[in-house]
Amino acid sequence: MSEFKPLGDRVLVEPIEEAQQKSAGGIIIPDSAKEKPMQGKVIAVGPGGPTEDGEVTMQVKVGDVVLYGKYSGTEVKIDGKERLIMRQRDIYGTIVG
Amino acid sequence: MSEFKPLGDRVLVEPIEEAQQKSAGGIIIPDSAKEKPMQGKVIAVGPGGPTEDGEVTMQVKVGDVVLYGKYSGTEVKIDGKERLIMRQRDIYGTIVG
Amino acid sequence: MSEFKPLGDRVLVEPIEEAQQKSAGGIIIPDSAKEKPMQGKVIAVGPGGPTEDGEVTMQVKVGDVVLYGKYSGTEVKIDGKERLIMRQRDIYGTIVG
Amino acid sequence: MSEFKPLGDRVLVEPIEEAQQKSAGGIIIPDSAKEKPMQGKVIAVGPGGPTEDGEVTMQVKVGDVVLYGKYSGTEVKIDGKERLIMRQRDIYGTIVG
Amino acid sequence: MSEFKPLGDRVLVEPIEEAQQKSAGGIIIPDSAKEKPMQGKVIAVGPGGPTEDGEVTMQVKVGDVVLYGKYSGTEVKIDGKERLIMRQRDIYGTIVG
Amino acid sequence: MSEFKPLGDRVLVEPIEEAQQKSAGGIIIPDSAKEKPMQGKVIAVGPGGPTEDGEVTMQVKVGDVVLYGKYSGTEVKIDGKERLIMRQRDIYGTIVG
Amino acid sequence: MSEFKPLGDRVLVEPIEEAQQKSAGGIIIPDSAKEKPMQGKVIAVGPGGPTEDGEVTMQVKVGDVVLYGKYSGTEVKIDGKERLIMRQRDIYGTIVG
Repeated sequence: MSEFKPLGDRVLVEPIEEAQQKSAGGIIIPDSAKEKPMQGKVIAVGPGGPTEDGEVTMQVKVGDVVLYGKYSGTEVKIDGKERLIMRQRDIYGTIVG
Repeated sequence: MSEFKPLGDRVLVEPIEEAQQKSAGGIIIPDSAKEKPMQGKVIAVGPGGPTEDGEVTMQVKVGDVVLYGKYSGTEVKIDGKERLIMRQRDIYGTIVG
Repeated sequence: MSEFKPLGDRVLVEPIEEAQQKSAGGIIIPDSAKEKPMQGKVIAVGPGGPTEDGEVTMQVKVGDVVLYGKYSGTEVKIDGKERLIMRQRDIYGTIVG
Repeated sequence: MSEFKPLGDRVLVEPIEEAQQKSAGGIIIPDSAKEKPMQGKVIAVGPGGPTEDGEVTMQVKVGDVVLYGKYSGTEVKIDGKERLIMRQRDIYGTIVG
Repeated sequence: MSEFKPLGDRVLVEPIEEAQQKSAGGIIIPDSAKEKPMQGKVIAVGPGGPTEDGEVTMQVKVGDVVLYGKYSGTEVKIDGKERLIMRQRDIYGTIVG
Repeated sequence: MSEFKPLGDRVLVEPIEEAQQKSAGGIIIPDSAKEKPMQGKVIAVGPGGPTEDGEVTMQVKVGDVVLYGKYSGTEVKIDGKERLIMRQRDIYGTIVG
Repeated sequence: MSEFKPLGDRVLVEPIEEAQQKSAGGIIIPDSAKEKPMQGKVIAVGPGGPTEDGEVTMQVKVGDVVLYGKYSGTEVKIDGKERLIMRQRDIYGTIVG
């Protein structure tokens, strides 16, 4: 098994398919939304560090379900599974319950 | 019930419909306004953190009625209700009374 | 009566009509001015806070007569009266006497 | 008489007419200059404060004769006299003697 | 043998050929990826220092297998071998196992 | 005699004519240079202060012969002599001997 | 003999001709490289100071062989020899051995 450790304020996210989002999370994104947000699960979190916003401390942790913009992140496959590498500043927040 | 916890300087806002705004708030936005402000109620508030403006401390709290720009925020539905995720810097101020 | 409390470095301003400006303030803006400044009275002042200029401390107070750029601020009506929400950095200065 | 108190790093300047500049100041601006500088006298000085350059301390004082770019500042008339509101960063320096 | 010592937050990277990536790393980049990431091995690391993000401390070390954007870095040949000089901010993270 | 005192990180420079540069300074600027540097002598130096680069301390002094970009500075005539007002960041360095 | 003392984070570099680079340095720049790096020898180093990246401390020293981008620096001739004035941030790193 391979492991990916993000650098800086980056986060590795497993996207949640739309069908699963509706039944599970209780949060539905209207199709009419200007920049449609997506749901995903945090798999790995960087150490933080200096960015154009200053020194970043990480506010998400492994296991968090997060909401992020549709065009956020870079696609990558790890051990055959689709993942997204994105920056914490691109994550809107976490979903609980 | 699902809960959304905003990250950074983000705020979750429940938009107030225009009909309700006029009777309740006493604040009317003229239709001729260049960038028409909208009213909403704060549902959840992020922890603050580093942004392009430096370290942000939150100045709004849950329950505040806020005024914000018409094109601010990202639309999302939580448990079937319309919400907006926006940044505190996009909020003009709070309405009291 | 409703009250508006500005956030950050924002200020609520009551615009002074041009006819009143000439008789009262002693400051006349020539029509030929490139970006015609306007006069207004400060109604409410935000707490200051982090902006793209760094941490802002408020230099205007309620009651100040201020000069600002013609295209500054966002129009809003509070209890039927016209107001402008603008940032302190858009205010040129105060008029005394 | 009205008085204008500049905010932030702004300065109120009384422009000196070109005819007077040549006889008085000893500094002549060639007509061929790319961005022709102008002379003026400082009438009022702001308290300084945070700007996009960081915290500004004022280096000019009331009475200084200053040199500034031709397109600097905002025109205003105070008690019928032409004045310019400009930022200290737009002033090249002071003329002595 | 020549040695290259990067300045600032720069890193010297030996690109890993795509054929080797699939068998070794377990991380596959889909061809459909918007900005296809690449794999490489860190050969040398700069001391860090001031950048447009502030003071940078290095988070990668010699021997790390890293993921970076396809168009990152500057190509150079050292003792006949292809290398890339890139900045740490262009590296997404490290691959372990 | 008039004196010009630069503000902030500005420097008053007396340009050295090209004929004199070749015999005196030993530094020749090839005509093929992309942005041809020029030589000048420092006449007055500002106190430094906050700029978009942060707080600037002056590194040139009156009497220094400096090299600067061809399009740097603002032309001005003081007591009939041609001068340039430029910022220290536009000066490449000083020439000795 | 003339000497040039760079200001700020500038460095004076003596370019190494391509023929000499191949035999001496062991580092070859492929002609296909997107932005072909060049080799040079450091002749003089500025004191560092404030830049758009913050306060810069110098990491190169006189005698270092450096790699830099093809379009970096400003061309100048000192005592008949070709030199380049560039900023430390434009230097990729140093070559040893």
